Amino acid sequence: MNGVVLAPGLKGFPHGHAPVAGDEIAVLGWNILDGRFPLPLAVLKRVALEHNLQWMQQFVRDRGIDLAPHGKTTMSPQLFARQLDAGAWGITFATVTQLAVGVAAGARRALIANQVLADDDLAAIQALLKTHAELRIVFLVDSTAQLALIEAWSAVHAGSVPFEVMLEIGVPGGRTGCRTHDDAAALARRLHASAAVKLAGIECYEGLGAKGRSEDDVPYAAALMDRVDAIARLCDAERLFDTDEVLLSAGGSAIFDLVAGRLKPALGRPVRGLLRSGCYVTHDHGNYRRMLAAVQARCGCADSLRPALEVWTHVQSRPEPGLAILACGRRDISFDIEMPIPFARAPRGTLVPQPVPSSWKVTGLNDQHAYLRWDAADEGLAPAVGERIGLGISHPCTTFDKWHWMPIVEDDYRVSDAVTLHF
Amino acid sequence: MNGVVLAPGLKGFPHGHAPVAGDEIAVLGWNILDGRFPLPLAVLKRVALEHNLQWMQQFVRDRGIDLAPHGKTTMSPQLFARQLDAGAWGITFATVTQLAVGVAAGARRALIANQVLADDDLAAIQALLKTHAELRIVFLVDSTAQLALIEAWSAVHAGSVPFEVMLEIGVPGGRTGCRTHDDAAALARRLHASAAVKLAGIECYEGLGAKGRSEDDVPYAAALMDRVDAIARLCDAERLFDTDEVLLSAGGSAIFDLVAGRLKPALGRPVRGLLRSGCYVTHDHGNYRRMLAAVQARCGCADSLRPALEVWTHVQSRPEPGLAILACGRRDISFDIEMPIPFARAPRGTLVPQPVPSSWKVTGLNDQHAYLRWDAADEGLAPAVGERIGLGISHPCTTFDKWHWMPIVEDDYRVSDAVTLHF
Repeated sequence: MNGVVLAPGLKGFPHGHAPVAGDEIAVLGWNILDGRFPLPLAVLKRVALEHNLQWMQQFVRDRGIDLAPHGKTTMSPQLFARQLDAGAWGITFATVTQLAVGVAAGARRALIANQVLADDDLAAIQALLKTHAELRIVFLVDSTAQLALIEAWSAVHAGSVPFEVMLEIGVPGGRTGCRTHDDAAALARRLHASAAVKLAGIECYEGLGAKGRSEDDVPYAAALMDRVDAIARLCDAERLFDTDEVLLSAGGSAIFDLVAGRLKPALGRPVRGLLRSGCYVTHDHGNYRRMLAAVQARCGCADSLRPALEVWTHVQSRPEPGLAILACGRRDISFDIEMPIPFARAPRGTLVPQPVPSSWKVTGLNDQHAYLRWDAADEGLAPAVGERIGLGISHPCTTFDKWHWMPIVEDDYRVSDAVTLHF
Repeated sequence: MNGVVLAPGLKGFPHGHAPVAGDEIAVLGWNILDGRFPLPLAVLKRVALEHNLQWMQQFVRDRGIDLAPHGKTTMSPQLFARQLDAGAWGITFATVTQLAVGVAAGARRALIANQVLADDDLAAIQALLKTHAELRIVFLVDSTAQLALIEAWSAVHAGSVPFEVMLEIGVPGGRTGCRTHDDAAALARRLHASAAVKLAGIECYEGLGAKGRSEDDVPYAAALMDRVDAIARLCDAERLFDTDEVLLSAGGSAIFDLVAGRLKPALGRPVRGLLRSGCYVTHDHGNYRRMLAAVQARCGCADSLRPALEVWTHVQSRPEPGLAILACGRRDISFDIEMPIPFARAPRGTLVPQPVPSSWKVTGLNDQHAYLRWDAADEGLAPAVGERIGLGISHPCTTFDKWHWMPIVEDDYRVSDAVTLHF
């Protein structure tokens, strides 16, 4: 584990235990249900994780494209290494600070799926490129105002190399990116003409508009990718691309199947399609589970991604009928899409979780607490004070960012490895 | 700053800069608007922070009670030290992991405002008490089921000292705590009779029920504190308290004025009232600002708390009229109560922020982005790409937990100190 040392003070690490090197944790014989871990504790399930790494790599391989998974999901050097080992072309980041963590972890092809424009960020990219001769960094541009800031920086930094950029196509009413073909064409010409940047490709992000219903998502994604295709062909025809190979990138983890097939158009020069899915690595029990049901139906796949991230906690109080208070709150688990999803229970003393009644629901979170409720008919199955509860998550990104490390566990919850997280 | 070293890799720290000891940061002459800090960046304003520390300390002093501020808000050793230096009796925590951070930071009187019951947590408390002879730790009990777990642990750990506990009074439909006087009385008798614990006081948390309207909050708080008072008198009359001094504790940062006056009833032994407000230390621009307006009206105070926590970022795109995309997302700022509140702007090159048009609103957050919108009439005042925007927050706890450090700035945004955060 790259010499990383886990130690008390990290949330979830056993109280007062001597520091442990990540690659030595397996030999300790720990199980996350054996009572030694302070709860709550977020855990990664190795078998599901490895399945997801292979499944997504096969998915892009089958479509003749590459994976540049979004590293902002996990910000874990050890997971970046697993993604690269599985065959990922590079890693995507949201900020230059994230990029620096990724480069330190060994990433040598990096996308920043964001507009870079601040002087300190531009300088940091140049410094990284100077330090690592084999490093490639590509970020997004969506306006002449942004380009002007880049040009102004470059004008006073002689000896800097041109920044590699992708032009971003956006959706009206959406987030970043050019809203019209004419704006995008004009910007592409400006980028090609600028000595401060090299136009390396075209980018879009389809994920924000995903509804999870094919009747909506198919035409939405097709229309967006038609626009990407049109601007890519224009840049090709007008010879606006400044690199031998054109990058074409899209991608979240919700409707990636609807864009993957559109990332390899026949242009006058080679095209590398880059899918930037990030959440696929752990998948989830909520939003992405629903999204992947639609992906699987469209692809006719027998199998797809598996949830690999769980948060375990215990009941600290059962103050009234139908209610248990769990030691797990907004600081520990995602809540931006929906509440955590209870899926397993393990009474004190057992290492073998069991399923929970279907009426169990987390109905609210405070900073440090969750409210678990059930139907009156299930009162006889109510969890005991001290009983451990397994919570599924909805949205990996906002669970990862609440932890500094996570153990990797086998399906029987034995700890076999660990990762660190650097948000 | 306790020898803490800030270094690249911490979000918000200048890219590639040499590590800096916290107590040396002031001499560097940095200003958070001088372009050297990667944005977003969360900052603490020294003058407001010191005002709040003094204001709240005076508030409890005037009422003859003490402050045991909730450390979970900031989890900052340097802020704990400032709170203790200002006169706080001790520090409150939500978990044993947090407690260990606080004890390492010098806290010697600690409340855990939660039910402790897991074997590893109980063992860690005993270990801390053994290591620090002058340390006092008091946690909450609200059920005989919890007491049974504590007794079971103590039975097999000869030589452990009795745990000091407060009995928690809860609100029907609320979170933890005994729902009825009879349940509380029965539990108090069990606690007094148990060799595993010492009943040190009575606790409640009024904050979750606060509405911000005096006509609701005054009778709600009075009814809750009447119940606390009744059980305290019963324990006093029946000599159930096991300590010479009785602790009576309540307290969030929303309607603390409605409980503070009730924490010092005349009992047969000395009473120490402990207010556990945590968010007062930085206050905010949203929820607590509204709550304090009501506190101020009730107290007739000319002055109260001041917002001391801001997040600065920049515009990365202005993709269509009425919309700017900011580089600041769910990983950087609170969103559990309401969206961030834009309050200042600083064009590139200036160190002097100006107020923003009142129509500016943040209407949404993604993981790494914010959507800033304005009325069509203000299109001429739209921020430029690259312009810096100051965001106020609503709910300090969920902004603090997204950072590992924060600079402390003077009112002109010169950096004069820094704190680290340990979530």
